[in-house]
Amino acid sequence: MVNSQVVVDQQVQNVLDALKGRTINHVYFVACGGSSAIMYPNKYILDREAKDLTSDVYSSNEFIHRNPRKLGENSLVVLCSMSGTTPETVKAAEFARQKGALTVGFTNQPTSPLAQESEFVVKYEWGAESVAFNTNLGLLYQLTFGVLNVLEGNDKFDKMVNSLSNLQSVFEKAAKQYEGKALQFGQEYKDEKVIYTMASGANYGIAYSYAICILMEMQWIHSNAVHSGEYFHGPFEIIDKDVPFIILLGLDETRPLDERALDFSKKYGEKLVVLDAKDLDLTGVDEELRGYIAPLVLNHVLRKYAEQLAEARNHPLSQRRYMWKVEY
Amino acid sequence: MVNSQVVVDQQVQNVLDALKGRTINHVYFVACGGSSAIMYPNKYILDREAKDLTSDVYSSNEFIHRNPRKLGENSLVVLCSMSGTTPETVKAAEFARQKGALTVGFTNQPTSPLAQESEFVVKYEWGAESVAFNTNLGLLYQLTFGVLNVLEGNDKFDKMVNSLSNLQSVFEKAAKQYEGKALQFGQEYKDEKVIYTMASGANYGIAYSYAICILMEMQWIHSNAVHSGEYFHGPFEIIDKDVPFIILLGLDETRPLDERALDFSKKYGEKLVVLDAKDLDLTGVDEELRGYIAPLVLNHVLRKYAEQLAEARNHPLSQRRYMWKVEY
Repeated sequence: MVNSQVVVDQQVQNVLDALKGRTINHVYFVACGGSSAIMYPNKYILDREAKDLTSDVYSSNEFIHRNPRKLGENSLVVLCSMSGTTPETVKAAEFARQKGALTVGFTNQPTSPLAQESEFVVKYEWGAESVAFNTNLGLLYQLTFGVLNVLEGNDKFDKMVNSLSNLQSVFEKAAKQYEGKALQFGQEYKDEKVIYTMASGANYGIAYSYAICILMEMQWIHSNAVHSGEYFHGPFEIIDKDVPFIILLGLDETRPLDERALDFSKKYGEKLVVLDAKDLDLTGVDEELRGYIAPLVLNHVLRKYAEQLAEARNHPLSQRRYMWKVEY
Repeated sequence: MVNSQVVVDQQVQNVLDALKGRTINHVYFVACGGSSAIMYPNKYILDREAKDLTSDVYSSNEFIHRNPRKLGENSLVVLCSMSGTTPETVKAAEFARQKGALTVGFTNQPTSPLAQESEFVVKYEWGAESVAFNTNLGLLYQLTFGVLNVLEGNDKFDKMVNSLSNLQSVFEKAAKQYEGKALQFGQEYKDEKVIYTMASGANYGIAYSYAICILMEMQWIHSNAVHSGEYFHGPFEIIDKDVPFIILLGLDETRPLDERALDFSKKYGEKLVVLDAKDLDLTGVDEELRGYIAPLVLNHVLRKYAEQLAEARNHPLSQRRYMWKVEY
């Protein structure tokens, strides 16, 4: 190429090369906890974009024991574990590979058990030294759009790769923009015993991750990620002026669900933390892809909210009762 | 037939007749809240049993706005609303039908808007006068196994219909067996502010329904249906001796996940309510199908737990803050 077009990550390209000439009709996204949560928007993308390809998201041990009958040589199984040592996910890779599926393990540790059990490995970066393009979600999106491109000729692949290459500056602007609000959140909510999260569509996985990993796991605060559409069919009876909700408003097609949930919550709740992706500066991200990209930015901002909450509560995000301490 | 073999419900048979000679490659289970929760075990069944057929469960408004690209004339869309008036579900039926999908509306009200918008209607019974065979789950299971039979020749259909015809006596025995425990549950847990539920596999939908409809909606108790496999990847940090968990142990293939979650919870929690399907008398239910049938029985038992909790708290299950009272 003569122009300055960004190219897809080479590790992802290796998977895409292997897909050529191979029949794949189903994608299984398999991981646990926070690594499972990042799979959700990828299924949203496939549901919206795929003409024929179907997909499922399963927690690793559910995947193994459920043992989907369709799983086989026409399946692509995408797995993720930061350390690459999550036993259920390592076993899921082994299980899927025995069934003849094409396996891709996302991990920060390229010599880990998950990397060894997966046919293809995608090493991702995390923490301060990472840039958006090379994070787990950044690389997963490259794979998801790459798969759509190779198998079905979807033409959004290049645009997505380009948008992801511009995402780091979006992250940095967003973090700065929400610095004060994150601090305020920590101060105002530090004594809460329960904090709900709510979202839909492409953003639901982010709400799920925040509920189970940040609030329940890292802060020992009761939580539940309520789906904005389900809210009106049960969960909304819980809200009143004393019950906090973090409400995410996305830019994808399900945004009207979030808006409706917010409108109702404003009437009967008083402790609402609203993150609206419309307020973000998404310069560099293709207009057509902003609905898909929003969850990555909201996730980045929410991490700042988590850090400030931990600080205000004097309860480090790394503090655990059981993980790393007892057998389970 | 000359023998006394039970026949499938005629309304379900009408759908099965329409499937003959038609190409269906995907089933969408579409409903809201408690009606959505009963769809989950049906997807579990399809995942386990279907050679080719794929499926998804969506909350009605998510389904419409997500607008899956695959949705079309090769889709079967199964919807449910007790009153048949849930606006999102009525609209979902209309939407799916416009896309050319085959639509089946489950409802207690055969002249309701959902019945009018659906190509086929299955009227189900509920409450004191219903028997297991004619409840929403009883009829849904007949459809799910019927679909597998017609489209893929799955041979468990007759066994399932027979098992469902014997289920009412199982329900009655189970209700009697757990009468004392339900009463005890109401007394012991009436002052709790948070009660989690936990399950996996075929039973997860039951745990979900209990969390969002019984506890949050009908009792205004904070809750979250934790998946037993996800438990160890975040949520388990919330448990200690003061945090109540209702843990369901099923008979399906994911039971080891529930057992592991229970073992851990017993070490660090003290407020555990355990419903183990192994303790049930499932006489009349085919051995091979007990894993699929267990959630229906656990659901029936849990309803008794809900009634006793409501009684002990002097908070009727019909009491609402918003539903039926305010606009939303």
